[in-house]
Amino acid sequence: MTLSHDTSLRGFASDNYSGVHPRILDAISRANGGHQIAYGEDQYTERLDEVARELFGEQASIFPVFNGTGANVTALMSLLPRWGAVICASSAHINVDENGAPERVGGFKLLQVDTPDGKLTPELIDQEAWGWGDEHRAQPLAVSITQATELGTVYTAEEIKAITEHAHKLGMMVHLDGSRLANAAASLGVELRELTTDAGVDIVSLGGTKNGMLAGEGILTLRSELAADMKYLRKMNMQLGSKMRFISAQLIELYGTGLWRELAGHSNAMAAKLSAAVQQIDGVELVYPTQANGVFAQLSNEVSDKLRESFRFYDWDRAAGQVRWMCSFDTTEADVDAFIAKLRELLGQHVAA
Amino acid sequence: MTLSHDTSLRGFASDNYSGVHPRILDAISRANGGHQIAYGEDQYTERLDEVARELFGEQASIFPVFNGTGANVTALMSLLPRWGAVICASSAHINVDENGAPERVGGFKLLQVDTPDGKLTPELIDQEAWGWGDEHRAQPLAVSITQATELGTVYTAEEIKAITEHAHKLGMMVHLDGSRLANAAASLGVELRELTTDAGVDIVSLGGTKNGMLAGEGILTLRSELAADMKYLRKMNMQLGSKMRFISAQLIELYGTGLWRELAGHSNAMAAKLSAAVQQIDGVELVYPTQANGVFAQLSNEVSDKLRESFRFYDWDRAAGQVRWMCSFDTTEADVDAFIAKLRELLGQHVAA
Amino acid sequence: MTLSHDTSLRGFASDNYSGVHPRILDAISRANGGHQIAYGEDQYTERLDEVARELFGEQASIFPVFNGTGANVTALMSLLPRWGAVICASSAHINVDENGAPERVGGFKLLQVDTPDGKLTPELIDQEAWGWGDEHRAQPLAVSITQATELGTVYTAEEIKAITEHAHKLGMMVHLDGSRLANAAASLGVELRELTTDAGVDIVSLGGTKNGMLAGEGILTLRSELAADMKYLRKMNMQLGSKMRFISAQLIELYGTGLWRELAGHSNAMAAKLSAAVQQIDGVELVYPTQANGVFAQLSNEVSDKLRESFRFYDWDRAAGQVRWMCSFDTTEADVDAFIAKLRELLGQHVAA
Amino acid sequence: MTLSHDTSLRGFASDNYSGVHPRILDAISRANGGHQIAYGEDQYTERLDEVARELFGEQASIFPVFNGTGANVTALMSLLPRWGAVICASSAHINVDENGAPERVGGFKLLQVDTPDGKLTPELIDQEAWGWGDEHRAQPLAVSITQATELGTVYTAEEIKAITEHAHKLGMMVHLDGSRLANAAASLGVELRELTTDAGVDIVSLGGTKNGMLAGEGILTLRSELAADMKYLRKMNMQLGSKMRFISAQLIELYGTGLWRELAGHSNAMAAKLSAAVQQIDGVELVYPTQANGVFAQLSNEVSDKLRESFRFYDWDRAAGQVRWMCSFDTTEADVDAFIAKLRELLGQHVAA
Repeated sequence: MTLSHDTSLRGFASDNYSGVHPRILDAISRANGGHQIAYGEDQYTERLDEVARELFGEQASIFPVFNGTGANVTALMSLLPRWGAVICASSAHINVDENGAPERVGGFKLLQVDTPDGKLTPELIDQEAWGWGDEHRAQPLAVSITQATELGTVYTAEEIKAITEHAHKLGMMVHLDGSRLANAAASLGVELRELTTDAGVDIVSLGGTKNGMLAGEGILTLRSELAADMKYLRKMNMQLGSKMRFISAQLIELYGTGLWRELAGHSNAMAAKLSAAVQQIDGVELVYPTQANGVFAQLSNEVSDKLRESFRFYDWDRAAGQVRWMCSFDTTEADVDAFIAKLRELLGQHVAA
Repeated sequence: MTLSHDTSLRGFASDNYSGVHPRILDAISRANGGHQIAYGEDQYTERLDEVARELFGEQASIFPVFNGTGANVTALMSLLPRWGAVICASSAHINVDENGAPERVGGFKLLQVDTPDGKLTPELIDQEAWGWGDEHRAQPLAVSITQATELGTVYTAEEIKAITEHAHKLGMMVHLDGSRLANAAASLGVELRELTTDAGVDIVSLGGTKNGMLAGEGILTLRSELAADMKYLRKMNMQLGSKMRFISAQLIELYGTGLWRELAGHSNAMAAKLSAAVQQIDGVELVYPTQANGVFAQLSNEVSDKLRESFRFYDWDRAAGQVRWMCSFDTTEADVDAFIAKLRELLGQHVAA
Repeated sequence: MTLSHDTSLRGFASDNYSGVHPRILDAISRANGGHQIAYGEDQYTERLDEVARELFGEQASIFPVFNGTGANVTALMSLLPRWGAVICASSAHINVDENGAPERVGGFKLLQVDTPDGKLTPELIDQEAWGWGDEHRAQPLAVSITQATELGTVYTAEEIKAITEHAHKLGMMVHLDGSRLANAAASLGVELRELTTDAGVDIVSLGGTKNGMLAGEGILTLRSELAADMKYLRKMNMQLGSKMRFISAQLIELYGTGLWRELAGHSNAMAAKLSAAVQQIDGVELVYPTQANGVFAQLSNEVSDKLRESFRFYDWDRAAGQVRWMCSFDTTEADVDAFIAKLRELLGQHVAA
Repeated sequence: MTLSHDTSLRGFASDNYSGVHPRILDAISRANGGHQIAYGEDQYTERLDEVARELFGEQASIFPVFNGTGANVTALMSLLPRWGAVICASSAHINVDENGAPERVGGFKLLQVDTPDGKLTPELIDQEAWGWGDEHRAQPLAVSITQATELGTVYTAEEIKAITEHAHKLGMMVHLDGSRLANAAASLGVELRELTTDAGVDIVSLGGTKNGMLAGEGILTLRSELAADMKYLRKMNMQLGSKMRFISAQLIELYGTGLWRELAGHSNAMAAKLSAAVQQIDGVELVYPTQANGVFAQLSNEVSDKLRESFRFYDWDRAAGQVRWMCSFDTTEADVDAFIAKLRELLGQHVAA
């Protein structure tokens, strides 16, 4: 069967519209052949755990899973008794984009806090951090932050540390949804562990798919006691892959080499270029600072609808005229230039070449 | 990173110890490049649905998911109200190998029936098919059969038809766990639809990973009304892949060409060869007829433990001295010969070359 | 065993600090003796269903359950597929006082809207009424309103009708948490059906315990199709009482006579008396209009803490100095007078007798 | 409203067809009047905890809940992590009579064992006590036994001790479904603690409703660490009563006086009388020994159907011609005599008076 598609199709819709980075595909091929024990007792998954320790410290382990929702829900369940609740930003992926899987599969309540920019702070957390001991209230026992946030903003290591210290003092654990952790670290020019282990985070959903992998994420436990029973949760949550070597091989290639930074850094750079250009155009405003690989802009729906005829992207808040333009590991400078040219054209602000 | 493994390692432990068939890997590569809409609106998933209709009839649709447990639980939920129960064989994968995911995530009760060979019959189903209208009893509203069964046996089309007719008459839907459906069809020399659509089955977990895919299964709905809301269940069950094109491309290659039959037929043939050889050896008995790619044998634990030093495989029932030897798409005649030779050697029944 | 308590203890903490009205206790006694079929096939439960039809129309049925959380969660589940979500006020009991039972047991997501006074409106509902067809979003398929609200305010029949018409137009069903429905109807001087059946409500949690019953609430279905499978949900949610005649007998006495209005009207009158008195006192402000049996007031925490030494009641929002004073069916004029006198005394505003 | 019923109606259908014992009703009345803190901080619930310690030892606590299913599911959840499973008899109430609430609400899997008489033994438990550490298997971490069993048989203290020692050695906790614990203790002539605390049981569903109470059961924790978080589980499982004093007052009256033994002893005696008479009649056979308040008999369906025209009772296994005749606290000698006379008449074995 020789089905194929037009590989010149591109857009700014999402970092998971892109495909697989060649080095990831190559890693999959190399892991092929012969037999390996299924369900994670293979040689690649063993090596992945070494990578985890090298990057995140001696207590770290990575449990490969299929997708981000699976990673988030499973990670959070591991932090909580059955009566637990999670404090998160209203805009968090777990709250708005997972069809209630946290509640339905995880059985935990989300205590939502509105934020100006997708980022929690100790003060914002305090809005919902109360009521321990009162059986009528779902018990706030974990905080979940997203790095980079759904709004394209980034927490500094200090900001994360302030949150983990506050949360721990109150008896709450901290989960970091890191589907774009690589973008945050690349943006800040820091090591991954500065934003996680060193910042006091307890558990991480370590992204893969949005940064050039075919499929797969990791539940990254940063305290050894959190790893003890994870395998049961992963299995019962239907996130245990049989031929796990192929997820592990991807994660090894991405995180065990510098590839994560290379790809995320490129996505970020493309977003920065796009953001900078946008700021030169009348009739388009940035909604949030561009700190990772997403550009959030405000413009007339009429213009954005016309622009969409050439480049696919999503409305973020149609009523407010806000759109999201995501860059990916395979976004090119030419993609951005063409996009900007089209936008200028639609706004009557052509620039001579 | 140049991690690699010894690709000459082989065994008879499981059909998911093997890797990815080259044509599947090639299909993944071809699907790469450029952008495709995420979450299943891509060109490959669209094509996969055509494949479904070509193979399984006009009402068929395939919803790609990550793994067998995800397919089984999601498929069964789609058949049941919240108070539903599923009649299955005690030996069914959903009952013994999924850490309670059907109960925990699916929220449904399994009504188990002991079977002589892993196969349900209308009479066996009747053991648990009662109590409708009685709110104290979880309502039996679906039957789940496994084809080929966990015991390496195969239902004929007529046997399936007898079950679906009986179930439907009683107001119950029928799910077929087809993680090895290809093996059953290859074994019987029939088309896939003869064992599913034409036999009255309502929904299928269509296997991929155990027959040469990297990862991925399909929820195959055979009645159009079952497809309507599947997308919500798949998402909330954390089985929605973002870069779905890569699962779809694998399924297209496997099922849209004759590859499924070629690979499953080969596994079956290797099992048949192994089974035939075993029957010539004193001290080893077949436990179940070899109808697919698994050979179930009884021998002394002492011998099987020694054999295991050379070839990895699993005990099936240690107390009874039963073991399972699985063949895979990449099992070779030489593998079988070497295995038999070793077994004969351990039993003192060398055969001159 | 002759344990007893000081029956002169009273307060303004909650309408469930009070005991059982004598007529309710008498109804229980009368239902005693001999045998009645368990689990709801008794003569009293049959009669209760007649009462339902008399009060709420031909399609109405009442399913007795144990408590309000059980009624709310079970009622809402009956309106929703597994991927459903419920739009409610942030202040709703289901959102803040049920330890996540809606999410954990019901498996549904709550889409919360902040309200000025605990009351939803079509406009407020629209904040979360969107995203149908998008599998990433928990599907908004029901609206839950509380009558009287947790803030002591009351919806008019017209306000409810506006909500149900809006919701129905959008394909959403409407649940009314009526743990204090009697107070609302008594306050407005209307029949119960004007606020429910006639206002387009689909299902009601019909209160009992807070209005003089020993224990028990009813799930009141107002469309016949909602009654069909309710028995299964009630049983699996662990809300099926065996000696149901005793819950039914209470509900018959409360709703089948005018008792509900008498008791709720009295609680309301006591709250009105308290509210009127409070408005004459400097240093205490009403936070919400007093429309049912709860008075929400703002005063210094210092004064409220001293007042609490004589009369038990709860802080509502300690940071804001807000307290809740609830009146009950057994609150007396003397209770209110003593309370007001004490409050005046603490604020240095004695009034000569 | 003066609805009443024919209090001379009686039968042998179930011990929850009967009403409330007068002393229980009186206890409810005495607990009425004035205000008591809701949700269990009342004087009666405090006293109930003393009763628990007096009867069951210093570590005991009782958490009142609404019904048996609520008690069973909540108690078992408290023993298990999310991936836990419970070994029980196939005939256990949790397995056959609770519409899957253990699986649906509790999220745990039941590992069922067939028994000759409803009683587990260490050997029977071993059929399912295996697979710890294997993430594919729901982890067997609790055993649930029923005392007296659903088949009217009774465990001796030694039999229970053998089970708890075996289970504890294997790392499993033991739950006792004691909806008829009083009948077992009365039958054996032992104290309640001999069958629970002293026999090594960890947690008990302490029956009330089937032994003369209006409604209510207790979750009886026998190790202090099991009590710590029970309040959260009870609330989230929708089993927290607001006017808890009335459940507690009933439990105090039943268990804090000798009433439990008096009522259960009477039911047992009536069953013994019935059982003895049955053994004198040709055409009726006992199916199980009569050790508590239920008589299980085998006779022709034709005769049992005619008998049922005069006295309501249930088929137990229609195909096998087995029926269940339950005695209750209010069964009289005259009831038994009339029943036996009718049975003899139908079988043509009249006895002259």
